[in-house]
Amino acid sequence: MDHEIHELGNVQLQRGATLRNARLAYKTHGRLNADRSNAIVYPTWYSGQHQDNEWLIGPGMALDPGKYFIIVPNMLGNGLSSSPSNTPEPYDRARFPQVTLYDNVRLQHRLVTERFGLERLALVVGWSMGAQQTYQWGCLYPDMVERIAPFCGSAKTAPHNHVFLEGVKAALTGDAHWNQGWYDSPPTKGLRAVGRVYAGWGLSQPFYRQELWRGMGYSSLEDFLIAFWEGFFLPKDANNLLAMLWTWQHGDISDNPVFKGDLKQALGAIQARAIVMPGAMDLYFPPQDNEWEAAQMPLAEFLPIPGVWGHFAGGGANAEDTAFIDAQLKRLLATGPASRSWHRPLHALEK
Amino acid sequence: MDHEIHELGNVQLQRGATLRNARLAYKTHGRLNADRSNAIVYPTWYSGQHQDNEWLIGPGMALDPGKYFIIVPNMLGNGLSSSPSNTPEPYDRARFPQVTLYDNVRLQHRLVTERFGLERLALVVGWSMGAQQTYQWGCLYPDMVERIAPFCGSAKTAPHNHVFLEGVKAALTGDAHWNQGWYDSPPTKGLRAVGRVYAGWGLSQPFYRQELWRGMGYSSLEDFLIAFWEGFFLPKDANNLLAMLWTWQHGDISDNPVFKGDLKQALGAIQARAIVMPGAMDLYFPPQDNEWEAAQMPLAEFLPIPGVWGHFAGGGANAEDTAFIDAQLKRLLATGPASRSWHRPLHALEK
Repeated sequence: MDHEIHELGNVQLQRGATLRNARLAYKTHGRLNADRSNAIVYPTWYSGQHQDNEWLIGPGMALDPGKYFIIVPNMLGNGLSSSPSNTPEPYDRARFPQVTLYDNVRLQHRLVTERFGLERLALVVGWSMGAQQTYQWGCLYPDMVERIAPFCGSAKTAPHNHVFLEGVKAALTGDAHWNQGWYDSPPTKGLRAVGRVYAGWGLSQPFYRQELWRGMGYSSLEDFLIAFWEGFFLPKDANNLLAMLWTWQHGDISDNPVFKGDLKQALGAIQARAIVMPGAMDLYFPPQDNEWEAAQMPLAEFLPIPGVWGHFAGGGANAEDTAFIDAQLKRLLATGPASRSWHRPLHALEK
Repeated sequence: MDHEIHELGNVQLQRGATLRNARLAYKTHGRLNADRSNAIVYPTWYSGQHQDNEWLIGPGMALDPGKYFIIVPNMLGNGLSSSPSNTPEPYDRARFPQVTLYDNVRLQHRLVTERFGLERLALVVGWSMGAQQTYQWGCLYPDMVERIAPFCGSAKTAPHNHVFLEGVKAALTGDAHWNQGWYDSPPTKGLRAVGRVYAGWGLSQPFYRQELWRGMGYSSLEDFLIAFWEGFFLPKDANNLLAMLWTWQHGDISDNPVFKGDLKQALGAIQARAIVMPGAMDLYFPPQDNEWEAAQMPLAEFLPIPGVWGHFAGGGANAEDTAFIDAQLKRLLATGPASRSWHRPLHALEK
């Protein structure tokens, strides 16, 4: 096994269910230093697992395991942390409970405090739903999180993004083999359909016009649709995808007992220095949403990733965008932590 | 019956099949004048029928039946002209042949010449796939077409647009009731899924953020998804949708014996005065494609429809965009026909 498990016991989730014997799978890179000041949290994204984050970690990169202690927690529902596919009866499969961003980040907070005794994080960083978790970290634990770098993700899932996901869901659940989640063999036709629906959203119009899939090793557009997109989703568990999709559709860093739905307040509570990086041509996390969000944050810089890779600007699929993100992370990590004078204790927000 | 039928006999289609007893359904508005100079052709769009074009026709509008003789031909596959749903065995249903833009426009040309003896058209205008037919008219019959106004559609279906349609197709054909086209009752789950997949593409991100569906009479986002989007596709025949989708995916005004795949030549052959109007935020016919196309045309003006209605800027769903399009059509119709000195005979293009 290339990862560790943190046992969480019985966890009461935000929406009411109790997830018994909940577990977070995680992987670490590098070593925690003596004063515990070099920890970075880098959550996973929709259907991704810890190994899918490793393109942004390496010697000489911002996330250098020689300098930092990098913890990659797997999102609930992704097949490694507690998920429909690995939870025992009766909360297995189609009965897996609703999990929120808030649940994910509270449990990640337990991981880093209980397991590693951390009191501060040099950085929280993530792509897509990983970016949503990053924002959530920033506002829930402002005294702990010194810097954040959410890329290609928003603090609150926009209505259009919700609609895009309705299309994904309809394509998956239209397969009769899905059987309301009680499939014996995978609903492969539905999973393939998810790949085809997703293909238009993940990358921009000019990406396809310029046939940039060629540089990824695909020999025709149809080859890209089959080998990349269908191949991407076929190995994934349908109930896991639907569980994470629910989390995504309900993604809102203010939808919790702390911020009670006040998104401006939640964004304003982020005391970390932040660089917010949308993909300039992202079709479902469009830069405009991030621009508004960054304007609500005390110390945020809004900086789109140029180019035509759309959402996948943050997916590690091309060297140029990876270099851009890495350079910004280096710049962010080179700054001192935001002045503590900015910080208000969290309870001050709960008037 | 609110429309007429033009019988075309046995038609050999571009891709090889012979469509026997082919027919074009059409509706006319207004009267042809004595010198036959006031005819306008206004083709239909993906899954639309002639009555769905009527929002742009009316007294005081550019397309004023008191001034113009407006012919609305129904696209092949739309359920009124020859289609999977109305063609007798053996070319019925899943066996309906592949139909191209070129086929559609050649048959429309037969309609207007055989039925009405027209030698020139004051205007060809259309939305979406209707815009594609408009471009096709302009390059196939440059000596006949005086003006064109394609809106929210391209001369050649872009690869990204093709991919978007793959998602639509996968969502529809994922329904086991579809049964490779040999369904006895409609694949309603697949049709509903098409609605949900389409919903994200048809309208822009800010349309949803601003909840503009409220002004269309919907009470919640889910109400809009069910009552508008699912309701939009449920009454349509799945094989018809797939036949028109094939036409769309293969939409290319140069893919025919005249232009032999040379898109620049096809666009350059359009001698009509043109106003090309994309929706400024159209997600699948993005303005950039039209900008390039207009630059290849001798007398074209590129003029995006402002606002956030995306592809549906051209759908007649809001008064502001309708007024914008109508004003441009008035301006275009007020110009004299392009100088005949511009015109080269079509055979000059076939070196």
